[in-house]
Order: sequence, then structure tokens, then C-alpha cells
Amino acid sequence: MNLPQTLVEIVGADGVLAGEDVRSRFVSWVDQSPCQALAIVRPASTEQVTRVLAACHAAGQPVVPMGGLTGLVRGCVAGPGEIGLSLERMHRVESVDPINRIMTVEAGVPVQVVQEEAEKHGLLYPVDFGARGSAHIGGSVATNAGGNSVIRYGMTRDSVLGLEAVLADGTVISSMNRMIKNNAAYDLKQLFIGTEGTLGVITRLVLRLREAPRSTQTAMVACTEFADVTQLLKHMDAALGGALSAFEVMWNDFYRLVTTPPAKGSPPLDQDHPYYVLLESSGGDATRDQAQFEAALGEAIEAGLVADAVMASSEAQREALWALRDDVESVFRLGMPVPFDISLPVTEMEGYVAEAMGRLEREWPEYRRFALGHLGDGNLHIVAAGPPSQAARHGIERCVYEPLAARGGSVSAEHGIGLDKQPWLGLSRNEAELALMRRLKDALDPKGILNPGRVLPA
Amino acid sequence: MNLPQTLVEIVGADGVLAGEDVRSRFVSWVDQSPCQALAIVRPASTEQVTRVLAACHAAGQPVVPMGGLTGLVRGCVAGPGEIGLSLERMHRVESVDPINRIMTVEAGVPVQVVQEEAEKHGLLYPVDFGARGSAHIGGSVATNAGGNSVIRYGMTRDSVLGLEAVLADGTVISSMNRMIKNNAAYDLKQLFIGTEGTLGVITRLVLRLREAPRSTQTAMVACTEFADVTQLLKHMDAALGGALSAFEVMWNDFYRLVTTPPAKGSPPLDQDHPYYVLLESSGGDATRDQAQFEAALGEAIEAGLVADAVMASSEAQREALWALRDDVESVFRLGMPVPFDISLPVTEMEGYVAEAMGRLEREWPEYRRFALGHLGDGNLHIVAAGPPSQAARHGIERCVYEPLAARGGSVSAEHGIGLDKQPWLGLSRNEAELALMRRLKDALDPKGILNPGRVLPA
Repeated sequence: MNLPQTLVEIVGADGVLAGEDVRSRFVSWVDQSPCQALAIVRPASTEQVTRVLAACHAAGQPVVPMGGLTGLVRGCVAGPGEIGLSLERMHRVESVDPINRIMTVEAGVPVQVVQEEAEKHGLLYPVDFGARGSAHIGGSVATNAGGNSVIRYGMTRDSVLGLEAVLADGTVISSMNRMIKNNAAYDLKQLFIGTEGTLGVITRLVLRLREAPRSTQTAMVACTEFADVTQLLKHMDAALGGALSAFEVMWNDFYRLVTTPPAKGSPPLDQDHPYYVLLESSGGDATRDQAQFEAALGEAIEAGLVADAVMASSEAQREALWALRDDVESVFRLGMPVPFDISLPVTEMEGYVAEAMGRLEREWPEYRRFALGHLGDGNLHIVAAGPPSQAARHGIERCVYEPLAARGGSVSAEHGIGLDKQPWLGLSRNEAELALMRRLKDALDPKGILNPGRVLPA
Repeated sequence: MNLPQTLVEIVGADGVLAGEDVRSRFVSWVDQSPCQALAIVRPASTEQVTRVLAACHAAGQPVVPMGGLTGLVRGCVAGPGEIGLSLERMHRVESVDPINRIMTVEAGVPVQVVQEEAEKHGLLYPVDFGARGSAHIGGSVATNAGGNSVIRYGMTRDSVLGLEAVLADGTVISSMNRMIKNNAAYDLKQLFIGTEGTLGVITRLVLRLREAPRSTQTAMVACTEFADVTQLLKHMDAALGGALSAFEVMWNDFYRLVTTPPAKGSPPLDQDHPYYVLLESSGGDATRDQAQFEAALGEAIEAGLVADAVMASSEAQREALWALRDDVESVFRLGMPVPFDISLPVTEMEGYVAEAMGRLEREWPEYRRFALGHLGDGNLHIVAAGPPSQAARHGIERCVYEPLAARGGSVSAEHGIGLDKQPWLGLSRNEAELALMRRLKDALDPKGILNPGRVLPA
């Protein structure tokens, strides 16, 4: 078999990019150097994906599934000798069903298009994150993307009812379930959610939609002790009875950075508090929801959990509060950013941050350090910034990752493992877990052609 | 190896039941004939489970994991030539952590004990179903149990953060994650949730708890058209903004049965409406929640979705409404009950019920037929009752299951497959899905000793 010719026969001449056409594309969103892949194959249907994979499988050709290339761990980067399998031509929204509250899409649909299609029907696709405009829904499922609303709606896993995926050998697994409850034997979709394209290529999805909230209440509060932050989470969650939709925490250093020029933001609260929490609830009735939110916050203030608070009274004010949380650019201004996405039980967080930050201060004093996170989900983002240096990057990684192991933390909360986090995977997973993952990989992709070397060692 | 002697050495003489000690136990909750197993082995620790499985694996001895034996599909019934592996001696609540809102337990703890332990800390373990007092938490995870609160809190799958399981060969997979977000490679717990003990034996669990609701609002309403029922679900879900916690539907025949003597219940609403919905919301503030619930229901009445309604104004009234929904005994009085647990998209339900009921009426006129369900989750329970007969049972099954296939329905919403539903599994799963399940089974249990012949054919 002449593989290049076979691929052209399957997807058409337009469907295969090679040479300069590959080089003219970026490696990814974060690495804008020329793509080094052997070729980029762009099937237009599941049937074409099947035939492409069957041909590559027969030839022992490594294949890297490509979504919107917005991943942050090099899980989707096709390199020399590899074929990139891009789902970009499979971008059809097949149907939106407002009564069953489901949407059926091809994997190449951008996440933002899914959100917008849902909105047209008064519905919500609840997974949301910064890269929504470029990220493909298929990639977001393959990486089990998180985001800001996990505390309310769960991870991407919780918004997938059914899917269709193609195994390494071209076998189509069509498991397009539309129900919330379905215990008819093994739930096969779980094999493809969060496994980063190493067990199969997701081609189509049945997504679960929710009724769109009709009101949003937002506040920024300051806390003096970390224990107040964790109690506040419990209190607001209980008092709002299911309506809490964001609980984002900024440590003092980050808050100070993003509320001090040259940052664009100004401080809605004094800069001297140890912790700042961005709180949001969303519900079905603006007037009642606002009253409930204010009452719950009032109780927190009375109980001494909150030192100071400001409530957004307009959409502009709400956006200004979120802009502080989202202002990572201010960190980028300080030099090479080394960002982290980790998770650990909230009771471990204070001690962990003290330990990791202390180590960073001692070992890499020329780097500034910041902590913030989706605390409601145990998700912490740490960012260090300073002079560009590969040695420093690795050293900083040690300071951040190593203290996680003893605390039962995870080296990846929501970004996956890809290539970049693989050296650290052993801190969060034990030998038996890794061996079982390998057993699964061998069972589903015995030749190891799918995204080889990502997540698990080659 | 002398297997019986080895097993006694591992778990002690007390730990192995044989002969009359086995025969004196029931097969299961629904079949109270004597257990026919070769032996029942009762390990007291994960280490003992490991050694028991390693010994059985070496001997090629079939093993059936046993929880509280409350399953309804013979997934946990150890028969002749099989060893029952009971987790009944592993019933320790290891810890409750109210800040991280997690509980760590051994698999043999009854579901009700989990619920009660959570309550002691102002928390909620949200999975609830009738067999709570006997069902083991491990069995409920292995079967991904559903229940009445799935619409709000999801299936059991959504309340499991981490677990420990032992593979057929005795390998321990300890994956005791405590975080909501953890994308450090494959999410191995998914292999053991809902696979009914065919891929491993769950020994320990980290459960996710929620803040306990502080108030509950309950109403029974009547609807004239099925389209009103589905619109009502959407309306209440949106208007209550996350607080809707039950949406149970009864078709007229069932409602009439349970509100007419000799049934204990009396009709809170006229008996002439086609559909009755038991609605519940739960929240964080009794006064506000009640106002919101009344307002949402008022809107539904104004919009013509609801023909009549009654609200529970006391706990006794609430219990009386739920007692109607839960009164399956009234069906049992009519003869041999043939109960079904299926799911399908709500838009398919009206047509499906008409078709299945029509077929039952034509083919099995001497059986009475009833429909009710957790409509919010697409879960429908159909019950036929009449003269005891195995032939009738099979014929009734055909009437109920066969019309599901064309509608994308599932032969098992929440009860699993076990032995009983295996003949029908092909109506809900295609060849490729079944082949992939088999590939998983072969990869994890190559000798096929774990719960052989359950879920998948032997």
C-alpha cells in the first residue's frame, strides 16, 4: 500500500495537507512555530475517519488527533513522522432538541458554536473556558475540559450523554445514547472522555444541555483566614441551595498584581486582605435570587467569615470583577510564565500553597509567584513568572509538583497530561494504576498508533 | 492447591460458609429460596480480597461478588459451582470529612448508613432508593444505582470520587481520588462503576457528599396532555434554577389503582386526569424556597400546563403524596408482577407507552398494565400484573422491550443487566459496542472468573 496515495483516495486531494501546506500551520495555540507533521489529513465524515485509521493501522503509521489545538500540554501536537488527523471539516451541528435538552454535533464544532446554538433555544451548554472560540467540542471531550462552572454543572464528562468514536483499527463505536439514565451494560463513552485521543478518535457527540439561568448574582469578598474561605464555600453552597455557580479564589499577591497599574483593573476592595473570593449564583428569578444571594452573603458577614464585600449591580460591574480573575496578561508582563493546573483537597490547600511558594521563593527567588483557583472544585492555578530559562522551568515544576504527592493532589486538574505532564504523572498515579492504563491502551490500540507517547509513555 | 483449605487460611474458618451455612441463606432479596453457591467467602480486608481472588484465579474458580443482594436482575446471585464473595464484613466507615465533603468507606457499608453518617455532619449522600437499608454501597456503585434524586444530583457515578478495586487476578487498583477535578490520565474508576462486578471487586470508596438541603417543597399536579408534562418539566427546571429535585410521573391507571380501595391512599386530585406529576424542590431557605416554588407552579397553571394541583403543607402530607408513588404493593395484589425499568427520550415516551401498552392489551389481556417513572431522567417503570406464568413473563417482556430499539431506548435505566436482562441487551447495544465490552472483559479478566455470564454472555 502507498499510504499517501490511499489517504488522498479516501479524503480527496483537498483533504490531505503536506509540505508547505503543513508548515504554514502553527504547531498549536501556544507554540506558533511551523507544524512538523508528515501530513495533516482532514476527513469529512466518520466513514472517512474509519478508512483513514484502518489504512494507518495497517501501515503502522502514528496518528495524532487534532482538535482546535488549544490544549496546553502538547497532547495534540503532531510532530515529524506523525500524521495529524484534523476533525476541522466535521463541524456540523446535526440537531438541537429543546424538549430532550440535547444537541447532536460532529466533533469539529467549536465549543462556542455549541454554546450559541444552545442559547438560541433558551438552553445552556454549561462548559465554558477561555479558548471556547477555537477549541473543538471533540477535543474538549477528549480532554474532559473543566472551566468556571464545574462547581454547578460538573466537568465536560457530565455533559456528554453519548458519543461515536473510531478505534485505532478503524472500528466505529457508535454509542449515541440520549438518556441521563442508561445502565445497559458498560458505559463505553467513559473510555474516550478524558483519554486525550489515545484510545480512539471522537467523531460525533450527544451533548446534555440545561435550562439557561435567568439571572446571575456576582460578588467579590475578602477573607482574613483560609479557614474562612472554606467555611464560606460550605455556607454559600448550603444557603443558595443549588444555585452557587462560581467560587473563584485569588491569593493576595495575584489580587494586588491585577489591581495595580500597569494592570487595567482597579481594586474593588482594599488590597490588604489575604484572600479574595469571586462568588456567583445563577437562578430562575432575578428578584428572588438577588434577595437570597444578599441574605446568604449577609449571614456570612455576620458570622465573621467575610471581612469586606462588594456586589456587582450591573453587567459592567460583573465583567469588571471577572476581568480581575481572568487577567493573566498581567502575569505575562513579568517575564516567561510557568503556569500550573493542579488539584487537591481544599483542606490541604493552605499548607500546600505555603510549602510550594516557600520552596519557590528559596530556590527561584527571581521568579514572582501567584496563586488563584476554582477553589470550589479543589482546582488551583499557580503561575510563576520571570526570566526565560528551560532549567528554571523544570526546577519550578519540581517545586510545584513534588509537594502534591504526599497530599493526594493531582498534577492535572483540568488540562490533561499530553506530553508535558507525563514526567510528573507518577506523583499522582501509582504503579498499579499506570499498569492498568497500559493494559487498556494495549487492548484498544495494540499497535500503539493513536497519539503515541502522549498521556502514557510510548 | 486445595482451594477450600487455602480460602480458610486466608479468611479464617469463620470467614468461609459452606453446606448448610450457605443453604440457610437466601438467594437474594427477591428470591428467598436457599442459596446454591459452593461456598460464601467473607473477607475482612482488601488484602484478604486480593488473596481470595488470586487463589480463585489460579484455580479457575468462578467468583460472584455479593453486596446486599437487593439487585433485581440476578447480577449478584451465586449459583452451583460458584463462590460467593461477600463484602459483608467490610463495613467500616473510615472517615467523614465535612470540609472536603467526602466520606471514605469500605464497600460493605449499607447505603442507609452512608446517608445517616452524612446527616450527622449536615451533609447529604444524595443517592436514595427503597433498598437503602440492605443494599451495600459497593453494590450500588457496581450497579450505578439511580433513584429519585437523579434529576438533581445524578446517578451513583456522580457521587463517586475515588475507589479501590481488586482485579480478577488479585491486583489491587487503589484510585482513592478525593477531588472533583482530576485529569491525571485515565479515570480508572469508570471501569468499575456500573459494570456489575464483572471487571473487578470494589473494596473501598471515596464518596462525594453535598450540603444538606434546608427545605423541601412538594406538590402533586395533574396534566391533560403529555406535551404539558414535558413542558412542565422544562418550566419548573428553569424557574427553580437548580432546585428541582424530583419529577415523578404517574399515568392515570397507576394513579387510579393507588388511590382506590383496597389501596391505602386516597386521591389528592380527581382521578380523571391522564397524567399526575409529583414535583419536589429543595433549597437553602424555607420561606424563600416556598415562595419561589409557589410562583413557579402558579406560572405553570396560568400557562395552562397544569389542570389541577395540590401542595403539601406538612411533612405528613408530603409523605402521603410520596406513598402513592411508592405503592407498588397495590400492583402486587393483582397477581404476579412483571416489573420493568427502561429509559428513553421523553419525546419518545408518549408514543412508546401507547405502543407497548397496546401490544400488551392485545397479546396479554388478562394482565393489568401500569406506567410511572422518573420522567426527569427519561426513566420509565412499567409493571404488568396477572396470573403467574413463565411464558407470559417472556411474552410480556417482548411487548415492553422490543418497541424500545427503534426509539433509541434502553432496556435498563438503573437496575443493570445481570443475568435477567442479558437476552434483551442487543436491543439497546449494537454489535460493535458488545464486541468492545468483550474486549474490555478479556483484558481485565482473561480467565473469565469474575461474575461469569452476567452482563455479557459467558
